[in-house]
Amino acid sequence: MTDPTSVLDRLDSNRAAALERLFAFLRFKSISTDPAHADECRKAADWLAADLASIGFDARVAPTEGRPIVIARYDGPKGGPHVLFYGHYDVQPVDPVHLWRGDPFEPRIEAREDGSQIIVGRGAGDDKGQLMTFVEACRALKAVTGGLPCRVTILVEGEEESGGKNLPPFIAAHAAELRSDIAIVCDTCMWDKQTPAIVAMLRGMLCEKLTIHAANRDLHSGFYGGAAANPLHILANVLAGLRDETGRVTLPGFYDGVPEIPEHIRKQWDGLGFSDAAFLGEVGLSIPAGERGMNAMQSVWARPTAEVNGIRGGYAGTGFKTVIPAAAHANVSFRLVGAQDPLAIRRAFRARVRAAVPADCRVEFEGHGASRATVMPMDDPAFQTARRALGAEWGREAVFMGCGGSIPVVSEFQRQLGISTLLIGFGQNDDAIHSPNEKYEMTSFTKGARSFVRILSALGERTGEGGQTA
Amino acid sequence: MTDPTSVLDRLDSNRAAALERLFAFLRFKSISTDPAHADECRKAADWLAADLASIGFDARVAPTEGRPIVIARYDGPKGGPHVLFYGHYDVQPVDPVHLWRGDPFEPRIEAREDGSQIIVGRGAGDDKGQLMTFVEACRALKAVTGGLPCRVTILVEGEEESGGKNLPPFIAAHAAELRSDIAIVCDTCMWDKQTPAIVAMLRGMLCEKLTIHAANRDLHSGFYGGAAANPLHILANVLAGLRDETGRVTLPGFYDGVPEIPEHIRKQWDGLGFSDAAFLGEVGLSIPAGERGMNAMQSVWARPTAEVNGIRGGYAGTGFKTVIPAAAHANVSFRLVGAQDPLAIRRAFRARVRAAVPADCRVEFEGHGASRATVMPMDDPAFQTARRALGAEWGREAVFMGCGGSIPVVSEFQRQLGISTLLIGFGQNDDAIHSPNEKYEMTSFTKGARSFVRILSALGERTGEGGQTA
Repeated sequence: MTDPTSVLDRLDSNRAAALERLFAFLRFKSISTDPAHADECRKAADWLAADLASIGFDARVAPTEGRPIVIARYDGPKGGPHVLFYGHYDVQPVDPVHLWRGDPFEPRIEAREDGSQIIVGRGAGDDKGQLMTFVEACRALKAVTGGLPCRVTILVEGEEESGGKNLPPFIAAHAAELRSDIAIVCDTCMWDKQTPAIVAMLRGMLCEKLTIHAANRDLHSGFYGGAAANPLHILANVLAGLRDETGRVTLPGFYDGVPEIPEHIRKQWDGLGFSDAAFLGEVGLSIPAGERGMNAMQSVWARPTAEVNGIRGGYAGTGFKTVIPAAAHANVSFRLVGAQDPLAIRRAFRARVRAAVPADCRVEFEGHGASRATVMPMDDPAFQTARRALGAEWGREAVFMGCGGSIPVVSEFQRQLGISTLLIGFGQNDDAIHSPNEKYEMTSFTKGARSFVRILSALGERTGEGGQTA
Repeated sequence: MTDPTSVLDRLDSNRAAALERLFAFLRFKSISTDPAHADECRKAADWLAADLASIGFDARVAPTEGRPIVIARYDGPKGGPHVLFYGHYDVQPVDPVHLWRGDPFEPRIEAREDGSQIIVGRGAGDDKGQLMTFVEACRALKAVTGGLPCRVTILVEGEEESGGKNLPPFIAAHAAELRSDIAIVCDTCMWDKQTPAIVAMLRGMLCEKLTIHAANRDLHSGFYGGAAANPLHILANVLAGLRDETGRVTLPGFYDGVPEIPEHIRKQWDGLGFSDAAFLGEVGLSIPAGERGMNAMQSVWARPTAEVNGIRGGYAGTGFKTVIPAAAHANVSFRLVGAQDPLAIRRAFRARVRAAVPADCRVEFEGHGASRATVMPMDDPAFQTARRALGAEWGREAVFMGCGGSIPVVSEFQRQLGISTLLIGFGQNDDAIHSPNEKYEMTSFTKGARSFVRILSALGERTGEGGQTA
């Protein structure tokens, strides 16, 4: 294997310039949900494309119906593997802005009492800081070795925080350009500050919005209470009936395709020293609320759920209004594992709700996203290679962990390009992504870039061994 | 009995002036919930006090911690009964204002195709138009007979639409001045456009706001779904469990003190030609949603209920957010009948909710109003007198009807002053009070005033017969 020491040294000695670049990137207010910030999104995309071009990438900013996508290519050595890297340059809104310790778009370094440092600013952890670890790794590799050890295509979208509905058709339209041997996504967390991780399972997701309509207008609960259908009661009945008292989802066929947690994975997880008390204690809770007999980690990483994400109807603000509303709304999401079929579950859910709505009322549904769970091929040589490279950087074996979240692009890569994704990120659970004072650990940034130097070098090296995965 | 014909004639011949006065009163934007309209409330109160003074009342505007109260006295003949009249000059907000056919505060008369007329404007029906029927009756009686047949105290508050919390202490502080033989409240409806009614039963009310707190912040449902308590599920379970599948409320002891509907009342109601299909059809529904075996009228007039009036939590707006919120809110109200004890029901409700909240979550309650049901003494001579007077005006016997709503001032008069209330109003179910294009029937206004001339004359007459109720 090519010794990456000199590349790593260059990363270390050029850290100040790398931080300056990251800070320039963080200053763009690239909030994708807000059309008022479309121009800032465009500027962030332009900046990134220019930066990649300065390394030697063939980079461009491709339009979509929404925010543009940055796409860049660097041809590696002949016969080398082709790596597709994905990240996103858009960020979450900053409300409530008064809770920030400083301007969310004026990034800064803060030092902790123990001497460790954090980079604070919107996007520091999600995802600008993370994606720049990969870009800095490429820059250092190019500077020291004159090229990259693999062919690399970089795909950075600008709508990850706002639905990302333009990405799947973009992938379809550019499949030839994007088809590669393996994808890398840097948008996940480590197990803890010392222990790197590769996400081995991602839950799928099914989102449903429902509105139950009853009377043709809001009614006075004095004049109609007890006589007219109350959509809030109908909704409460539907939502309460989604889970039984053991925490299991009650939809018929819901558990079809839900696998047992494999023995070797369960063993590895048991060795992580996970504690319900610590995990839940961090958010002020103490009792695992999932299926009976599962600890919180098993529930989140490996079990499906039904969660109500929002309810709305009538008046529940200050004071009191004795109203029977005309309609009641709820958002419900299901996280899926194994081979659960989101469309079958959608059908079962809608049938259940329809059966609960009286004949003189009606229900409207709006589907939002339906993706299957992803289970990574952990025995694939590329996964093993990446795991070893991570271990070399961090001095600890990387954990193959689960992830309760859903990263739709991973299913898109699988479905449209037929490739697996290495989910390697350096975030921490306390990074406050989506919240005020979002941060990224300085060690995540520096050792993250070093990790990608090692991973790309090792993946490239495997070619020489005849180990290409394609 | 004094023949009121000349007084009634005067009402008829002075209708235009009475409408002008009503319109002047309706033009005040006396929305009590909105502090920005406090000045308009004050102006409405001042206008009313001045109008009453012009009739000969000793009238004043008394301050409260909120909107002022108009209080006015007219001493009737020696030994005559003392009537306390109650109304409210404040009105509901006008949103959504774009649904109004004209300016809500520029009242106007609209003609129907059948030649009947309506008075359209905010407050036309609730309660300015209604209360002015009584004022116009007094004005005509004074003009024609030189005085009033009874001693009359008029109490008009300005916070009926916004909680009315300053009224009970005001009644307590002015009990000596307000103590009388019987109260009259003009804030209810007729049975239909031809049939007058006296409300014989009012449901009591218990309002509870509850907030269930779970995690110390909103959580990502991917990272915590299945592990962390979701307050929306806890809330749904609580609300769904409030009623059983037969529509009965499940709180222990809830039906203690709920009487059977008296035989003679049930008989009278059965004769009214009430139809579930028509009553519910008017609001786009068809199936009575109350207790099994009760029709809609029985449910609303004579049975207790639990109704969810509002729910709020997480995100249920446009799009989708996969959040597990930190808290969930609901407003729940109970309508009470007979001798149900609101405080016992509050205790049972709170105990039920607390038992449903996991040990690592907590619930906060805020009580809003707790009033017992009122059953009027329909055999009282004053009630019979009023019923006869109404029948003389409308040519139909007045119905002793139930009312699903709650009029807290009636319990206050009972509790603090020891008097019963004649609930005589001329509203119609389709008056759209609290809604855009609120109206009051022209016949309600004209025949309402005539009705009060007859009622006051008859009540005064009874003195001569030695029939004073006090």
